[in-house]
Amino acid sequence: MSKTKVGVLGASGAVGQRLVRMMRNHPWFDIEALGGSERNAGKRYGDTLRPAPASAGEVDPGLLDMRLVPSRAESFTGCRLVFSALPSEAALDLEPELARAGLTVVSNASAHRMAPDVPLLIPEVNHEHAALIEQQRRNRGWSGAIVTNPNCSTISLTLALAPLYRAFGLEQVFVTTLQAVSGSGFNGVSALDIVDNVIPYIGGEEEKMETEPLKLLGTLSGGQDSTQQIVPAQGLSISAQCTRVPTTDGHLEMASIKLGQAVTQEDIIAAWENWKSLPQELELPSAPRRPVVVLSEPNRPQPRFDRDTEHGMATVVGRLRPCPLRD
Amino acid sequence: MSKTKVGVLGASGAVGQRLVRMMRNHPWFDIEALGGSERNAGKRYGDTLRPAPASAGEVDPGLLDMRLVPSRAESFTGCRLVFSALPSEAALDLEPELARAGLTVVSNASAHRMAPDVPLLIPEVNHEHAALIEQQRRNRGWSGAIVTNPNCSTISLTLALAPLYRAFGLEQVFVTTLQAVSGSGFNGVSALDIVDNVIPYIGGEEEKMETEPLKLLGTLSGGQDSTQQIVPAQGLSISAQCTRVPTTDGHLEMASIKLGQAVTQEDIIAAWENWKSLPQELELPSAPRRPVVVLSEPNRPQPRFDRDTEHGMATVVGRLRPCPLRD
Amino acid sequence: MSKTKVGVLGASGAVGQRLVRMMRNHPWFDIEALGGSERNAGKRYGDTLRPAPASAGEVDPGLLDMRLVPSRAESFTGCRLVFSALPSEAALDLEPELARAGLTVVSNASAHRMAPDVPLLIPEVNHEHAALIEQQRRNRGWSGAIVTNPNCSTISLTLALAPLYRAFGLEQVFVTTLQAVSGSGFNGVSALDIVDNVIPYIGGEEEKMETEPLKLLGTLSGGQDSTQQIVPAQGLSISAQCTRVPTTDGHLEMASIKLGQAVTQEDIIAAWENWKSLPQELELPSAPRRPVVVLSEPNRPQPRFDRDTEHGMATVVGRLRPCPLRD
Amino acid sequence: MSKTKVGVLGASGAVGQRLVRMMRNHPWFDIEALGGSERNAGKRYGDTLRPAPASAGEVDPGLLDMRLVPSRAESFTGCRLVFSALPSEAALDLEPELARAGLTVVSNASAHRMAPDVPLLIPEVNHEHAALIEQQRRNRGWSGAIVTNPNCSTISLTLALAPLYRAFGLEQVFVTTLQAVSGSGFNGVSALDIVDNVIPYIGGEEEKMETEPLKLLGTLSGGQDSTQQIVPAQGLSISAQCTRVPTTDGHLEMASIKLGQAVTQEDIIAAWENWKSLPQELELPSAPRRPVVVLSEPNRPQPRFDRDTEHGMATVVGRLRPCPLRD
Repeated sequence: MSKTKVGVLGASGAVGQRLVRMMRNHPWFDIEALGGSERNAGKRYGDTLRPAPASAGEVDPGLLDMRLVPSRAESFTGCRLVFSALPSEAALDLEPELARAGLTVVSNASAHRMAPDVPLLIPEVNHEHAALIEQQRRNRGWSGAIVTNPNCSTISLTLALAPLYRAFGLEQVFVTTLQAVSGSGFNGVSALDIVDNVIPYIGGEEEKMETEPLKLLGTLSGGQDSTQQIVPAQGLSISAQCTRVPTTDGHLEMASIKLGQAVTQEDIIAAWENWKSLPQELELPSAPRRPVVVLSEPNRPQPRFDRDTEHGMATVVGRLRPCPLRD
Repeated sequence: MSKTKVGVLGASGAVGQRLVRMMRNHPWFDIEALGGSERNAGKRYGDTLRPAPASAGEVDPGLLDMRLVPSRAESFTGCRLVFSALPSEAALDLEPELARAGLTVVSNASAHRMAPDVPLLIPEVNHEHAALIEQQRRNRGWSGAIVTNPNCSTISLTLALAPLYRAFGLEQVFVTTLQAVSGSGFNGVSALDIVDNVIPYIGGEEEKMETEPLKLLGTLSGGQDSTQQIVPAQGLSISAQCTRVPTTDGHLEMASIKLGQAVTQEDIIAAWENWKSLPQELELPSAPRRPVVVLSEPNRPQPRFDRDTEHGMATVVGRLRPCPLRD
Repeated sequence: MSKTKVGVLGASGAVGQRLVRMMRNHPWFDIEALGGSERNAGKRYGDTLRPAPASAGEVDPGLLDMRLVPSRAESFTGCRLVFSALPSEAALDLEPELARAGLTVVSNASAHRMAPDVPLLIPEVNHEHAALIEQQRRNRGWSGAIVTNPNCSTISLTLALAPLYRAFGLEQVFVTTLQAVSGSGFNGVSALDIVDNVIPYIGGEEEKMETEPLKLLGTLSGGQDSTQQIVPAQGLSISAQCTRVPTTDGHLEMASIKLGQAVTQEDIIAAWENWKSLPQELELPSAPRRPVVVLSEPNRPQPRFDRDTEHGMATVVGRLRPCPLRD
Repeated sequence: MSKTKVGVLGASGAVGQRLVRMMRNHPWFDIEALGGSERNAGKRYGDTLRPAPASAGEVDPGLLDMRLVPSRAESFTGCRLVFSALPSEAALDLEPELARAGLTVVSNASAHRMAPDVPLLIPEVNHEHAALIEQQRRNRGWSGAIVTNPNCSTISLTLALAPLYRAFGLEQVFVTTLQAVSGSGFNGVSALDIVDNVIPYIGGEEEKMETEPLKLLGTLSGGQDSTQQIVPAQGLSISAQCTRVPTTDGHLEMASIKLGQAVTQEDIIAAWENWKSLPQELELPSAPRRPVVVLSEPNRPQPRFDRDTEHGMATVVGRLRPCPLRD
């Protein structure tokens, strides 16, 4: 059985390189085209690579000599899927252009995440929202589509919240993030700004964390022939404060949450540890076996030691305890 | 007019060295005795020093050749005040021993902070609690006394909360700290634990942050001849989550607070900027001119750039904004 | 075929934990006893563990519940080999005690490295020096033995020097090291000393780097029945300057070397890339396939990206170029 | 007596901001114009500022509202001196343009440093080379001039070498640098590249360190009416290896040097400690009292603790010892 041909937009960026490394020896996907910026198009992919830690995996040697293609629809004609690791401004026009040309774009960019007919997906949380694709095609007259994943700090938070929301309901979340510099790309944070320092502000990040989880935990409503939409999670409010700390990889988040009902700590831990979803049932190639990993040591998780858990695809939680301000 | 002779307990530790540096050319105090651990007693003080950043100031050259005295009451007979930078376990018995011997001990250790008859002071916040000294002497039959200051992360939080508590009332505080390694002393955190990492736990720290501010913001009650005591701040609850980050100095804290009444942001900023107390009126030598400094830049305060504001004696606040979970 | 039973001395230290992780699923060795300090003996091994990066591997789950045995010969009676990750002071008396009791001790400690009848080994460089074991047994009347490996910064240097020394001769080496904090153990360097800093001194390290390579590159002389000894490398002088930098793992070394003859850069690269020795021929389980890896990028090797090359068992070299002070 | 009116080119860059901070309350200079890039020209200077550590000093509040002027000669008509903190590419054409227009440009850029008729100055080392200005004017028909200072890592090295070169002669210098990120400007090094890492390459830096000191230590020859030139230091060769380490400020350099004659360590220390030059005699406002500071502690200098010595204007040396490869 032949593999699906895929393309990668923004293949030389921090997210793009990670994607390409993850796709080495992938059982389903074959990289057919690597898209570059105007400056990089035509260059040998290997010459645009940045060094990566061993845990990120190797780039398929066969891709090193591939030439970067320009970032436009024609470049990806032979692909069935295009993964987009574009910066948000570039994604704004380019992703719809590809979708209009019949390509299915799976995007990490924020540009289209909150559009009502664009699925925002964490497969373990809301894979059923993928049904919005049909609505999107009807709305826009596209044969292709745009599917998105959330902001990096939203993903780990929502993966931990989803089991609790489903089991017990969820009313309030206060969250403070301590985010690694990898989250802002290769040149996002200057060393002179962050060594021996913390930056208590990341532009746009708090808004994303306060809104994206509501869509992710929302409900798909409407029949298949009428207007389908996502009804955001009801009765849930989130307050986020985002900081950048001098770590290379692995976001740490401290949260106080108010559940919809009284539960024991054992109930919560059970909800996390038993959380499985479609990706686990189907044993998808990159899916973590355990989407939420609970540590009992009092001083864990720690970014350097826990970021590679389940190949970096799990949320690791710890220090579960009552909050003095909650019942 | 001659200066007051003072001693320093734990003079070779991180806090002790900082104290000694701050007392260089002090208009009121003359260091008469420097106390060392059993291992260090008898050593030349200069030989126990660790390098310090320029902002910490220099040690008085005259002290470098002073010999460290053993940590017991007799060593400090000539002193009117003894500043204690002891580890908490050492302070437990030693500080009462000195007080019993007639010495007034001003301590940074946590051992006696929460004792009902021991003043826990931030001069800008609750200098009137110093009156407890008389009660303490009556209770214990001492001619000396123990006076304490709070935990480092409590001080900066409470200095920012006090103006709001006094002006508007205060009901709830969620706070997450990002604490520098200086807070745990010269050997408190191993480099191998913290480089490229965050440790989401500091033993005992959260308890201190959740209780000490209540005493600091409390009210001194009772007449001078009867039992004086501190009635803790009423109706205020605090939830603290403490982390250690790879910064050298300067604790950053992210807080969501619920005030006792509706106010504007301008009201809050005015309360902070107008906050003055006895130390400012008396123009005490180490007192900051502005105990609370408000920055308007969206990405401040930052530890490396703001920690030396007012010689490190102020709390610097910023990013004031409504919390989505509050009215 | 049953595995060899081995013990580990200092199993809870930084080197000890790394050793234990490396022995998980080892084809030849079974850990029979884990030795602890006086303070740790009797404790569950799992309770003395420190978190480790993913690249260090997992501890065999079966070992977590093993109790640490006291650090003396009787504790290791059932073992054929004991790996020692002791601090040097502890090793001084304890390792001979074990050897006297018939155990073969393979030690990372510096205490006995330079004794004339103790092999100091990098298998890729001088495996034939292992023959000294017989001489050692005759000298000391032991049935066991002590075998050592060099200092961490010596290993990577000597692995890169050996191919050049054998092929072209070697006269002078200037080397400056930028060593990671892992090299000094879990508590060797305080975070307050090294964050945003460099320490230009590591006690004893320069002496080790200036002498150990001479023994490693030396020649075993003498017949098997008479006094065997190592004649140190002739005509080679080394000047070392050692610094500690704020990296977690992976020592970087900058060297200027004077070879014994004129050669081209291609000759040097070929000598490195073709270097194989007995461990590679025997395909030993932990041996790197390529003991010396040469990178051509102008800005490599870098500690974070290259430290795990060949599971951390190779020396990675780069930036080969003529030195203006050499011919 | 009125102050000299000066301009600053590149006033918003890392070097430019430092210059402006140093000129606060300067007894001789009044800043008349601040030059910005095309993107910044017209902006309020205060809006282009980056936070700085306390040791860098404050910007004169009066300058915050000054508008940045375009980077061309007309913008600085009212100035007698223009300090240039331009990137080298921008300096290439712009500095000659200003000099041609009659302005004296004192530049930190590398573009013109090695031109034969451009003085490259460290006032403590070779202030007499300033006489080249006349030659430059004659050569080029300018009424203005370009004067330069060396590369940052060259300055500290040469300041330490000059006393030895003058007193004892100097034949060889091997130097390895561990440079802070401040040296490459606000955006020169990405955090993702340097946290927990070392980069063993800085483009062009080694060439500068190997050539600039020869000019600095050279001799001005030729009469005042004929062709004056600098004869580079004879018999001196330098080998430099430059690395970038995760420190914010303060370059550390490890050097092995071969002097022109046999001397004692005391001789060397005396040469350093007695080194004074014209800036010290004239007590120039920014000149360090001690250009070379010698520390005796075995583990100093350290960047974090020693970088602000003499307001950052001195070279701090330590760990003086014989090199095993030298006589």
